[in-house]
Amino acid sequence: MSKISTDSYKGVRDFYPRDKFVHDYIVNTLSQTCESFGYEAYDASILDPAELYRTKTNDEIVNDQTYTFEDRGGREVTLRPEMTPTVARMVAARSRELGFPLRWYSMPNCFRYERAQRGRLREFWQLNADIFGVAGIDADVEIIALAHRLMTAFGAKESHFEIRINDRRVFEQIFDEVGIDTGTRKSIMSLLDRRAKIDTFDSELGELAGDKAKKLTQLLDSAATNPLLEDLRSRLATRGITNVVIDTSIVRGFDYYTGMVFEVFDTAKENARSISGGGRYDHLLEMFGVDSIPTVGFATGDVTMRDFLEAHNLLPEYVSPTDLMICVLDKDTTSFANEVAQKLRDQDINVAVNYSYKKAGDQIKLADKKNIPFVACVGAQEIESGKLAVKHLASREEKELSVDEIADHIFTHEL
Amino acid sequence: MSKISTDSYKGVRDFYPRDKFVHDYIVNTLSQTCESFGYEAYDASILDPAELYRTKTNDEIVNDQTYTFEDRGGREVTLRPEMTPTVARMVAARSRELGFPLRWYSMPNCFRYERAQRGRLREFWQLNADIFGVAGIDADVEIIALAHRLMTAFGAKESHFEIRINDRRVFEQIFDEVGIDTGTRKSIMSLLDRRAKIDTFDSELGELAGDKAKKLTQLLDSAATNPLLEDLRSRLATRGITNVVIDTSIVRGFDYYTGMVFEVFDTAKENARSISGGGRYDHLLEMFGVDSIPTVGFATGDVTMRDFLEAHNLLPEYVSPTDLMICVLDKDTTSFANEVAQKLRDQDINVAVNYSYKKAGDQIKLADKKNIPFVACVGAQEIESGKLAVKHLASREEKELSVDEIADHIFTHEL
Repeated sequence: MSKISTDSYKGVRDFYPRDKFVHDYIVNTLSQTCESFGYEAYDASILDPAELYRTKTNDEIVNDQTYTFEDRGGREVTLRPEMTPTVARMVAARSRELGFPLRWYSMPNCFRYERAQRGRLREFWQLNADIFGVAGIDADVEIIALAHRLMTAFGAKESHFEIRINDRRVFEQIFDEVGIDTGTRKSIMSLLDRRAKIDTFDSELGELAGDKAKKLTQLLDSAATNPLLEDLRSRLATRGITNVVIDTSIVRGFDYYTGMVFEVFDTAKENARSISGGGRYDHLLEMFGVDSIPTVGFATGDVTMRDFLEAHNLLPEYVSPTDLMICVLDKDTTSFANEVAQKLRDQDINVAVNYSYKKAGDQIKLADKKNIPFVACVGAQEIESGKLAVKHLASREEKELSVDEIADHIFTHEL
Repeated sequence: MSKISTDSYKGVRDFYPRDKFVHDYIVNTLSQTCESFGYEAYDASILDPAELYRTKTNDEIVNDQTYTFEDRGGREVTLRPEMTPTVARMVAARSRELGFPLRWYSMPNCFRYERAQRGRLREFWQLNADIFGVAGIDADVEIIALAHRLMTAFGAKESHFEIRINDRRVFEQIFDEVGIDTGTRKSIMSLLDRRAKIDTFDSELGELAGDKAKKLTQLLDSAATNPLLEDLRSRLATRGITNVVIDTSIVRGFDYYTGMVFEVFDTAKENARSISGGGRYDHLLEMFGVDSIPTVGFATGDVTMRDFLEAHNLLPEYVSPTDLMICVLDKDTTSFANEVAQKLRDQDINVAVNYSYKKAGDQIKLADKKNIPFVACVGAQEIESGKLAVKHLASREEKELSVDEIADHIFTHEL
């Protein structure tokens, strides 16, 4: 038999227990914060019909980055590159039954075929949180307040991150004023989205806007004083959110945005990437032939969040899910060890029984390696006395306890 | 713009909040039970190189049921149809660093291209739990004890399900005795696996085993008295597990099993399917060119588990994640409502603020529809008095409380 590689597929991750611990910490903190704001969890399959992404996700993603293939029945399916079309589909499907306003969150994994690099992998998880059915600025403010709270829930200070806000309507007002036609607007928006990455902005804008380019540039450069943006910033300040900057270079890549857009940036230099981003998209549901529902939402990526927490030293120490390892010293005591273990499990103590029958020292070393806080050895002597010497590995403290006393002892220690 | 369908892809599920609630209940109960036995969580991407499944997953799955496609770089990848090859790959990759015995669990989604039917969908989640590094029967017993505990953790009684045990070594002993060559053994095992579904068992066995068929059938029919199986059953009885039957028709479809195999069956007639299944596979890691590690494990499917819990009326009532809806009566009080909401969130109360500015009655109806237990309306009067009338919708009990009293009131009610 030829040897098979142990490598995972390129750009995706294996989550060993310590990686999973960090991932769960991030997912749980995000989820609990969303629930504290009244959001309900939903989910969907990673597979969705390919047509779902064709019109409203941006062209770069659809043409170059999706994982799209035919199933055995000839249906074209895509591994979702983002969650918004899926959640729009789900809400559209039941728009008459679901009560609005609707607050929903999810923590899906998504796939994009990209070159793997810092903060960017082919598979990532992202929190998606959306409010459906509120047209006004209250929902815009809440969505940004939630994105802000997510950061502070991890212990971040306002100096660790910056919220950059903009509004698609500001561009529309300028396009109206200058007289740019609808087709050209989309091209200019796409150009603005790439502005920071390219040297040819002025010449490309000249090609698109002709003699209107100069006036357009002037208006775009002074857009930051637009009252829409000032109003949003002042409402956020009222909620105690002060690390907000108006940044008219924030466009967001997706075609479906119609109003406020924002991004949350890490202020650490080594990780100068967007952690969260989102905005208002009031017309997306129309593609399913239902009435549009005003919606605002955002997404937070797990990879950039992990980088952020690492950069600011906000990740917690690993804690083993197991409280106690019972080290069995010989086969005659296995049955007794299993019995003790089950008694403790019934009292909410997580217990692993070591069936290796190695020397006590080797078994204790394994518990230590796995960060299991307590060990107890079981041999003929323990069966006779009915008492176990329960050792706390970090403090080396050992206590002789009857089986009934062990759970309390462990709980007291863990408090 | 042509209308896009709101249907999900065939054979997968959309999890609306109430579906997600049930799914999370199942996932959390399974996870907590595994952790109580000292298992650590791991995870991996749904995408793995296609070669991983070619040799050891069974032919029907690989040839007819996998979702396999080429990525944009020409790599052949598969949406995992099961987790065992992935976990074997992960353990093999770090077999020198990981300390054994190793107890791992995961709750991956898996894909198989099948005709959707009761208990079977194209995408399903399954708990996978494995012990690596214990060759003896202790681990076999624990794995079955864990599968049993998973059922009782949901409130199931032993009469609700049945554990059917068998051992691949029993077949090997019989094949040795009759003198069946290695190539033919695999075909006979595959035939035995299909035995219950086909009418042509005797004729097919005749073709495979020739004049040895008669002796083979005799030995297979008396296999249930094998001491290996009796020993396992009596050890399970010692642990209080008594709904165990020896069933030599249990083969399990995967080629990698080498010892004990078992399935957990629902005793409800309408759901007579296997909920859990697994066994010992001591040689799988060799395909990665590392030393083999004795392993025993099993999987529990979410679809069959849900059907089981429904059949026996063991699913919990839906509980909203939101404790309180604050109904804002006019735009002048929004800021006050947001402030109250944030104070309560800081005390671990989950609060949704309703920004619809509809009539109080309509807002309260929405809270009721969403099963949110408490509502409080906020208008000019509440700002002035600093007191809110907090109403418990189920009991219609209403209490006037200062902001500082609300959290305690809600906690007391929820206990």
